Amino acid sequence: MGGHEPRPKIQGKEVSGTSSVLNAFFNPRGVAVIGASDDPKKLGYEVFKNLREYRGGRVYPVNPRREYVQGVKAFKSVLEVPDPVDMAAIVVPKKFVKQALIECGERGVKAVVIITAGFSETGPEGARDEEELVRIARKYGIRIVGPNCVGVMNTRADLNATFIMPAKKGSVAFISQSGALGGAIIYKTVKEKVGFSKFVSVGNMADVDFTDLMEYLANDPETTAIALYVEGLKNGKRFMEVARRVTKVKPVIALKGGRSEAGSKAVASHTGSLAGNFRVYEAAFRQAGILVADTIDEMISMARAFTQPLPKGRRVAVLTNAGGAGVLLTDQLEARGLRLADLSEGTREHLRSFLPPIASVRNPVDTTAGARGEDYYECVKALMRDEGVDLLIVACVVPTFAGMTPTEHAEGALKALREVRSEGIEKPVLAMFMAGHVSEKAREVLEGNGIPTYERPEDAAAAAEALVKYAAIRLNVA
Amino acid sequence: MGGHEPRPKIQGKEVSGTSSVLNAFFNPRGVAVIGASDDPKKLGYEVFKNLREYRGGRVYPVNPRREYVQGVKAFKSVLEVPDPVDMAAIVVPKKFVKQALIECGERGVKAVVIITAGFSETGPEGARDEEELVRIARKYGIRIVGPNCVGVMNTRADLNATFIMPAKKGSVAFISQSGALGGAIIYKTVKEKVGFSKFVSVGNMADVDFTDLMEYLANDPETTAIALYVEGLKNGKRFMEVARRVTKVKPVIALKGGRSEAGSKAVASHTGSLAGNFRVYEAAFRQAGILVADTIDEMISMARAFTQPLPKGRRVAVLTNAGGAGVLLTDQLEARGLRLADLSEGTREHLRSFLPPIASVRNPVDTTAGARGEDYYECVKALMRDEGVDLLIVACVVPTFAGMTPTEHAEGALKALREVRSEGIEKPVLAMFMAGHVSEKAREVLEGNGIPTYERPEDAAAAAEALVKYAAIRLNVA
Repeated sequence: MGGHEPRPKIQGKEVSGTSSVLNAFFNPRGVAVIGASDDPKKLGYEVFKNLREYRGGRVYPVNPRREYVQGVKAFKSVLEVPDPVDMAAIVVPKKFVKQALIECGERGVKAVVIITAGFSETGPEGARDEEELVRIARKYGIRIVGPNCVGVMNTRADLNATFIMPAKKGSVAFISQSGALGGAIIYKTVKEKVGFSKFVSVGNMADVDFTDLMEYLANDPETTAIALYVEGLKNGKRFMEVARRVTKVKPVIALKGGRSEAGSKAVASHTGSLAGNFRVYEAAFRQAGILVADTIDEMISMARAFTQPLPKGRRVAVLTNAGGAGVLLTDQLEARGLRLADLSEGTREHLRSFLPPIASVRNPVDTTAGARGEDYYECVKALMRDEGVDLLIVACVVPTFAGMTPTEHAEGALKALREVRSEGIEKPVLAMFMAGHVSEKAREVLEGNGIPTYERPEDAAAAAEALVKYAAIRLNVA
Repeated sequence: MGGHEPRPKIQGKEVSGTSSVLNAFFNPRGVAVIGASDDPKKLGYEVFKNLREYRGGRVYPVNPRREYVQGVKAFKSVLEVPDPVDMAAIVVPKKFVKQALIECGERGVKAVVIITAGFSETGPEGARDEEELVRIARKYGIRIVGPNCVGVMNTRADLNATFIMPAKKGSVAFISQSGALGGAIIYKTVKEKVGFSKFVSVGNMADVDFTDLMEYLANDPETTAIALYVEGLKNGKRFMEVARRVTKVKPVIALKGGRSEAGSKAVASHTGSLAGNFRVYEAAFRQAGILVADTIDEMISMARAFTQPLPKGRRVAVLTNAGGAGVLLTDQLEARGLRLADLSEGTREHLRSFLPPIASVRNPVDTTAGARGEDYYECVKALMRDEGVDLLIVACVVPTFAGMTPTEHAEGALKALREVRSEGIEKPVLAMFMAGHVSEKAREVLEGNGIPTYERPEDAAAAAEALVKYAAIRLNVA
């Protein structure tokens, strides 16, 4: 069960149809940038520049007033592009969007990202213009992401159909109803070395919405979990139906903006959505098996946990080389309804046999700061083998010995995990390495081996909680 | 009121006496490192290396088996050091600590940091040895920090009497009962470019404790707020008495480890303290005017707010260029009992006069992502002048125009603040700049001008909450 088995397909009538069309947004054979520009002041400059990194097909600049854009032969219209074009990104001024969309339809383009703003978010007139775009799209069988959005990314193919920097590669798909906030999260995660498989800024959700994307991503082998920043939903009933099916095969984590009364009013003036009563949303999300996050970091921390197998229970073992780190982590775990595992007599005796006398062999196991990598190796083996442990969190601060980096602790833990996994022990493991730059190498080593690694007790605890809660969801509905 | 006025002195019997002795830990005329070493595997190597950066006096290596340590003439004993020695750091093996302390006493050293471990944290025998150290100290009039600690820092004087990297300079004093966790927090904050005025790892608190340090720091002009990581207190009554006085002049923020039952047990095996019931601690802290933080980041975020003047109420204005950022910040503010200010008709009309039609001129004021620095300049002026606003949070994500950095927004906000402050408007301002590396320059510009700058809505909201709560504490007790 969990991240290591092949994911079952969703059973449902329209999944394959939707998926194959949406796939054009993420793996197009060719992409046209309508409004590609040579002027660095324009978004069409950034979008085309970003898309030139795409590895899955050719990218064509469309600009009626230029022969070349960024040194590439330009086309006057998407109609003139000779080769397959599955996707177009539209970044022209608003008055030209309709014509550009019609030409996409005539050209047979099936996936269109409309970055241009000025539609339903501006009032009734803009809403009417947006409805017209939808009518055109329906006529031609086009799916639209946007308008008024940042765009779409598929990091595994180096597809960046946005005007912002590319996300780091990872296994979480992130869908944001706020483009600018979504962008800020991409920048933040790049800095924090946290990655995504796909990113979609859904903008006004004139057509493609959370529901469509959840359905598509449920079948995406590159995505282990789906994270949503939601302000308001348009078709709540369909969202719930699909979410119930998707959460049976893949975890979905939602952060709801507009929880408070004032926040809800802010949502209304932002996306024009009815934020609705948060309690209603929260209850609905839980009913559909969606995990609810309170903050951006909690959402991402939870979603990142699912490279690990699911736990069989809620009994957590904590290994630490700093008492205080173990204490804060324990507080956070217990506040979230998890339990510290009672270690067996045998485990404690074994730990006692090699740890120094001042070490604590009760859970949290505190090696004290003088412990080395080999101590972590032995401790991780012992804790993973203890039948009373469902999930292990390996915490580490800067050790107090020469050189003072926790990289050897990370390596010791990984060596132990390889051994116990070869014994058939499949339990989830998370890491909490706390010392800023000094633990960066250790974190990279762990992440490179698929161990989700956090810096803060609350983030590690949220990840553990997500694994335990989702395990319960899977067991209930499987 | 607040960070801009000279801090009143504490009225109390023993403050000056304690302060003058404790001052030797932070501004010693000379420092001896007993156990200074040439062997990079030893802590005595790091401690001496770190102390060589000290600008306030000379630093002397003491090592009976070396003529030179790290190229500096060494002394066989602290008794042989010719010049003034106000402080000694002891890093010798445990069996030599007693003799080293006696020699400090004979030499007239008044402040001794005992880094060496193996005392009360190890059991009854270690506790007896620790009691003996205290008896020796009392006899000679020595104050001890430790034993079993990381040491002491005074960043303003480049004094780093620890074996870890120096903290960044700042105005928050941080006292940690967990050395290794304290160290991890120093590394973390260096990475995050957050600074401290002083750092003390109190270790076993054989002598100098939270209470002594709070008293000292209350009079420290380089410290605007005091942050405590507390596992357990030894003399609760005295702590409460002093905290009540200190919080009248300076904010104290505490993070309590061992809040949960399991966490409390972990505390017992860590520092040997009775963590006690968290509700009891929490009630006592609040009664003493101490602000209670839930996480490390919350503690630091709250403490950093106090470079700002105190607000006259809880009505917060939010300026943002991303709707989603404004929504999440609003949710966090309201969850913490703050209120979004109702902007005056005049303010809204004025904002409407220069912001684009799709901007929201209700609070949160959302300029949308196309806004420039001059828009932020105008908005900040208008919001600061609005009499219904007690506190302003300037939020910003990556703007969508050429160059795409929010630095000009930071500069626009600062220019506006200079103008309104020259008009006599003294309200606190916090910033939330959210875009990872892209906003780093903007954050530096703001921080360099004394504006506490956060990256996450929950941190900015915690800071605002701290200002509002502490303003109430000051008003109640002043």
